[in-house]
Amino acid sequence: MASVAGPEIERLIQLLARLPGLGPRSARRAALHLIKKREALMAPLAAAMQVAISKIQVCKTCGNIDSQNPCTVCTDARRDPSIITVVADVSDLWALERAHAVNGLYHVLGGTLSPLDGVGPQDLAIDSLVSRAHQPQVTEVILALNATVDGQTTAHYITDLLQDADVKVTRLAHGVPVGGELDYLDEGTLAAAMRQRTLF
Amino acid sequence: MASVAGPEIERLIQLLARLPGLGPRSARRAALHLIKKREALMAPLAAAMQVAISKIQVCKTCGNIDSQNPCTVCTDARRDPSIITVVADVSDLWALERAHAVNGLYHVLGGTLSPLDGVGPQDLAIDSLVSRAHQPQVTEVILALNATVDGQTTAHYITDLLQDADVKVTRLAHGVPVGGELDYLDEGTLAAAMRQRTLF
Repeated sequence: MASVAGPEIERLIQLLARLPGLGPRSARRAALHLIKKREALMAPLAAAMQVAISKIQVCKTCGNIDSQNPCTVCTDARRDPSIITVVADVSDLWALERAHAVNGLYHVLGGTLSPLDGVGPQDLAIDSLVSRAHQPQVTEVILALNATVDGQTTAHYITDLLQDADVKVTRLAHGVPVGGELDYLDEGTLAAAMRQRTLF
Repeated sequence: MASVAGPEIERLIQLLARLPGLGPRSARRAALHLIKKREALMAPLAAAMQVAISKIQVCKTCGNIDSQNPCTVCTDARRDPSIITVVADVSDLWALERAHAVNGLYHVLGGTLSPLDGVGPQDLAIDSLVSRAHQPQVTEVILALNATVDGQTTAHYITDLLQDADVKVTRLAHGVPVGGELDYLDEGTLAAAMRQRTLF
């Protein structure tokens, strides 16, 4: 294979295969597609990556990624600075923004506590969250973490640390997904949806 | 979304989403992965693309893509120049090379005849195939085209054109895929496998 496609193409395929969602086969297809669309796609993509490399940085306040620091969210005067939504990853921040579910600020932990994977509190942006939660304008910290063991462990850990801060600590509701059918839901979700039922 | 992630990230996501195998959601994941692995992945990938853009070209003999022209296959003295394997796309050439199935040269058509998609003979590298087939050293043309309507139409069309050339025109065998179970095979494949049965 290497002798046919040449080392340049082989390297391109290998690097593409390291993207999430692309395996060896789809990386080959992607490389071929890029080579065929050299001017229309590969050149702009390479340029966009160069721009991203030089411009994109991590917001020192909240951990979001953006081309400005502090990020667009932190500097947006229309957002409510009294509410901080804690997420594990920037992808969760993006998901909440797509849902227009948050009007406050964010705090990106950079992961969740995971003893099995060797992720401890010192590996996450927890200290900076605690100091932000002690700022006088902050009244609520929303823990928007995955409903997994690691996510909930992290939520409990943070809740304990925020005992002293004068903030309300909340978490996302469990319940029936919109469009979901009861018949297909697991018992834990159904039980939580019943317990947390709301007035119609 | 655009207001949160910034135009640079948005552009990166949009370009990544145009790769085959990546949809909008996986393009976002890929962009985030690239941004997180800026030095380890995004910079080398951008560099590999720049190298590919400047170096990779289409072989003027066979239509393969390579960093040299004529390509590595065409200039490989160990290959048998009397046999030309015709493929629709460079990806098919790669697949045959991975299978070590070909020891001769190739000819990449650049697609298959498809009246519905407006692909006619003038859109494919058919003229150059006919003139290569008339070279004295060429004795066999193997049509390694997809077993689809378009692939087989193209095979018939080329076979007609090569009537005058002093070459044997062959095509890939139909049959049971290696590892395949008869019970799951379609009738057409089974019937072809019976007709083309070989001595054990």
